[in-house]
Amino acid sequence: MAKPLHGVVLGTPSIMAPYLAAFEAAAPNLVLMPPEAVDDPAAIAFALAWDPDDDAFRPYPNLRLVSSIAAGVNGILASASLPGDVPLMRIAGEMQAKMMAGFVTWHVLWHHRRFGDYLANQRLSRWEHLLDRDASEIRVGLMGAGKMGGAVAESLLALGYDVAIYSRSGRNVPAGVTGFSGGREALERLAARSEILINLLPLTAQTRGILDADLFACLPRGGALIHVGRGEHLLEADLLAALDSGQLAGASLDVFAVEPLPRGHPFWRHERIVVTPHDACDSTPAQVAQEVAAALEGLDAGRLPTSLVDREAGY
Amino acid sequence: MAKPLHGVVLGTPSIMAPYLAAFEAAAPNLVLMPPEAVDDPAAIAFALAWDPDDDAFRPYPNLRLVSSIAAGVNGILASASLPGDVPLMRIAGEMQAKMMAGFVTWHVLWHHRRFGDYLANQRLSRWEHLLDRDASEIRVGLMGAGKMGGAVAESLLALGYDVAIYSRSGRNVPAGVTGFSGGREALERLAARSEILINLLPLTAQTRGILDADLFACLPRGGALIHVGRGEHLLEADLLAALDSGQLAGASLDVFAVEPLPRGHPFWRHERIVVTPHDACDSTPAQVAQEVAAALEGLDAGRLPTSLVDREAGY
Repeated sequence: MAKPLHGVVLGTPSIMAPYLAAFEAAAPNLVLMPPEAVDDPAAIAFALAWDPDDDAFRPYPNLRLVSSIAAGVNGILASASLPGDVPLMRIAGEMQAKMMAGFVTWHVLWHHRRFGDYLANQRLSRWEHLLDRDASEIRVGLMGAGKMGGAVAESLLALGYDVAIYSRSGRNVPAGVTGFSGGREALERLAARSEILINLLPLTAQTRGILDADLFACLPRGGALIHVGRGEHLLEADLLAALDSGQLAGASLDVFAVEPLPRGHPFWRHERIVVTPHDACDSTPAQVAQEVAAALEGLDAGRLPTSLVDREAGY
Repeated sequence: MAKPLHGVVLGTPSIMAPYLAAFEAAAPNLVLMPPEAVDDPAAIAFALAWDPDDDAFRPYPNLRLVSSIAAGVNGILASASLPGDVPLMRIAGEMQAKMMAGFVTWHVLWHHRRFGDYLANQRLSRWEHLLDRDASEIRVGLMGAGKMGGAVAESLLALGYDVAIYSRSGRNVPAGVTGFSGGREALERLAARSEILINLLPLTAQTRGILDADLFACLPRGGALIHVGRGEHLLEADLLAALDSGQLAGASLDVFAVEPLPRGHPFWRHERIVVTPHDACDSTPAQVAQEVAAALEGLDAGRLPTSLVDREAGY
């Protein structure tokens, strides 16, 4: 057995705690510890991070890998002490993408098939047919063509929806899907054909605030938003105004600028918003341990992590 | 243009009415009429039927095709006057199967991902993570391997669920799915591994009352039933008892012995039952017209309908 590699968790202790035990169980060759347990910072070879402090990385001169605990890396990229020359990876597993696809598919069906009205009718013992349009008549637009966007598209195609996808690069457009690529103008063309718009983009300087009144105005009147990106993508007041005016008929929100969503926030009580607690998908700590262990093994063999972050792109 | 073919609708007038206009628009070479408008019964070449009376078919000696308006044919097979030698078809379109798949997938996610609890938490402004198991940990069992069963399986596989399927014949088991075939014993083995059990079987003498206490007892404790077959498959008292005892944690019911489900029926108010109004999927009258027109053209060319009913099997 090879000599154990030492790693450190950088982030809020309550969030990072489950990873300490998970690494011990799932990756016995890795020794993960909190910063206060590190005797020899020079021996720390990897860091597992989530919203680390500005100076969190500073004590560790010999990092070979930094990993997020999830798909997002915006909090890590924002840390001033993140070394510029160390591979940074995110967690983007196959099952995580399928869980996202299930979550989003549920909400697409919620809006298309009016399941909220079925539930309300049941409370009134009311038998009322609501089915009026085939899936092929429903145009769904995806913002983001990464692993998760691909899994969502696959699921919606299997159910017969008319799917289009937007990404900056135009890469990874699945077969059977209409692709839109480029800047804001391309995104607005996607929105204009999307009765249901799904945001799966990463948070970057370019995408912050991207879900705004102008974008909502592009949708066909009475459309719906499914937002599973990052809270900072959304201008909250613009969403409430679009719902109030009837431009949007409904919204499903899993992510928020402040999490947990504060009590008293108007989203909680809005009858046409479904709020979920940033729960669309998740990697278990055991899966994170396995992915980080595999990436470190790969580095030993000269291979970069498959989910390496492009720092310039921001994801 | 060929000479128009004449047909008759046999069933409740309010149900059959939309088909008269739809055939006129979508199949101009077919002239569909209600029985009271038929001057020459010998000129009637086809019948479109739904729960026809016992003597409904008797006046028409020259029928070349009988079609249901939907996937079910049990009501037609129950009519004493149905001629034994005329091809009987049902409507089983690709999009109809995808709509069923979407409906069932929504309910699988409802039970697995605890969306009812999310909605209840939102009413309390309560932020609580509920995600605890991957789709791969959820064993879903399908009863019925027809076109709809295949579409449901495809959708659930795309989302990562562990899918098994039961059918009498064992035909049509999709790749990636565990197959069970044979009689009651095979069905019970499927149920024993199914945390979520989905009934898509046709109604026949063999399947009437198939959803009973003994079958529910086979499921792992705390399982869920999604019932989109026919009302007569289900012993209602057995379901209520299984929910009360905790053997079943929830049920989604779209079909009922009496439809519309009567006001005051305990299913309406049961907090762990989701009631929908036999709305899982539907063929539009225009789709029915197109399928019947295609089948009649095929008969002219010596081809039997692709969705021909096997009368001995009952579907």
